[in-house]
Amino acid sequence: MRRSASRAVIMADQWPRCVREMKGVILDMCGVLYDSGEGGGVPIEGSVEAVRRLKSSDLQLRFCTNETQATREKFVGKLKRMGFDIDVREVFSPAPAVVAILKERCLRPHLLVHDDLLPEFDSVDKFNSNCVVIGDAADNFSYQNMNTAFQILISLEKPLLFSMGRGRYYKETDGLKLDVGVYMKALEYACDLEADVVGKPAPMFFQSVLNDMGLQPHEVLMIGDDLVNDVGGAQRCGMKGLQVRTGKYRPSDERDPTVTADGYVDNLACAVDTILKYRCV
Amino acid sequence: MRRSASRAVIMADQWPRCVREMKGVILDMCGVLYDSGEGGGVPIEGSVEAVRRLKSSDLQLRFCTNETQATREKFVGKLKRMGFDIDVREVFSPAPAVVAILKERCLRPHLLVHDDLLPEFDSVDKFNSNCVVIGDAADNFSYQNMNTAFQILISLEKPLLFSMGRGRYYKETDGLKLDVGVYMKALEYACDLEADVVGKPAPMFFQSVLNDMGLQPHEVLMIGDDLVNDVGGAQRCGMKGLQVRTGKYRPSDERDPTVTADGYVDNLACAVDTILKYRCV
Repeated sequence: MRRSASRAVIMADQWPRCVREMKGVILDMCGVLYDSGEGGGVPIEGSVEAVRRLKSSDLQLRFCTNETQATREKFVGKLKRMGFDIDVREVFSPAPAVVAILKERCLRPHLLVHDDLLPEFDSVDKFNSNCVVIGDAADNFSYQNMNTAFQILISLEKPLLFSMGRGRYYKETDGLKLDVGVYMKALEYACDLEADVVGKPAPMFFQSVLNDMGLQPHEVLMIGDDLVNDVGGAQRCGMKGLQVRTGKYRPSDERDPTVTADGYVDNLACAVDTILKYRCV
Repeated sequence: MRRSASRAVIMADQWPRCVREMKGVILDMCGVLYDSGEGGGVPIEGSVEAVRRLKSSDLQLRFCTNETQATREKFVGKLKRMGFDIDVREVFSPAPAVVAILKERCLRPHLLVHDDLLPEFDSVDKFNSNCVVIGDAADNFSYQNMNTAFQILISLEKPLLFSMGRGRYYKETDGLKLDVGVYMKALEYACDLEADVVGKPAPMFFQSVLNDMGLQPHEVLMIGDDLVNDVGGAQRCGMKGLQVRTGKYRPSDERDPTVTADGYVDNLACAVDTILKYRCV
């Protein structure tokens, strides 16, 4: 793809300085580390080794995902079985963040989420719900479950909807699948409200990762396959954002009118090659 | 409800002239004639008699519905069994309108509709689909079916989505239910497109009813329970629009910032009382 290659070259001119100032990297997970699908998914070629190389460098590394189909523990366990060297404490996902908000504001959620995510909410009072929380519920996004969530929202004086992410779709091994953002939009329209997004691209979510690293935004690079939620979200926080041409990446992303990545690379392995090359100079 | 009553009085001042100039009435069906639900639904009190009285008057009468859970024939059969004097030729619904568009433009639809609506599309070529048509599919709005529709749309060079109506919700005997518009919004967001709406409030749809009556918009009154799609849609075509306080009506409709009905009445029987009273003076 000549056009993309030439853009990558232009970008590459700016890399040396950018990489030398860098102190941390945040990685999106699905579509960067692995492609999800039946049986848990498969690692993307070179990604296991790329994570290992980043960990061996002097860069701080965190993982930032909108994954809500499993608890963080189960999710990290799956990635470990794929060969990734990842610790639960390095992973930031929306469910623990929304639980903190619910407790702080004394909110009792009705949950429209994947069955495997439910344990994350064990400590939350759910009786007589006064808000709705949705995640990537997949097959649980039935007409009946959507109606129940809608009926609860519309009966509240101040309907309150939390959406764990606002993604349009993600890639599984057997094709693209609708993500939580699509159902968020559906309920927003049904109830004439605006959801509170917890997860990428919410600035508060990225900031919590930066706080954990103790770094300033300009010292950190975000790498993701989602142009809007990974790259655009990170850029709005003052970070650099790199898009990989894996996962849900589509060639049209490189001519998107709203978001332009600071660089496009074929995959995570290429990104890490570039970073470590300039870092060692 | 004191506030609504006083508004109705203010509106009533304008009624005599408006009603004398009137030559036709268009009635929405669900929420005006009957409430839908298990077993087909139940007539709204006074509506059977109200339709009979309108038919006995010198006014032309048509029915305009976004109903897409059954063929027009089956749907009218259900209303006849409830006691309504209605003929299929008096009823305008989105499926025949969308079929005409598909044939005119040589389009082959993938259908995400209620099983009982499928016969309306018997004469349409559906092989190797190059557009998607959605209706009020109810339980057919599963995650799997939504994914299939999404995958077809996203694979097309120019994704084309027809939505039979854009309603948010409707009322069944056991509560409010999500309507097709909610799933239209979901697919619009997923594919970054704008759907073509066939049915109310599309001006072309109202115009086809006016053409059939041979009347000008200012000579016709639309009566519906949906402020945006019935009342607002009719008003944008130059008709007067009256909202009934039955069906999906909610008190907040009367302070809606975008649409103000030309009048609010408790139900269809009250509307017909008012119309025939001023008509006989």
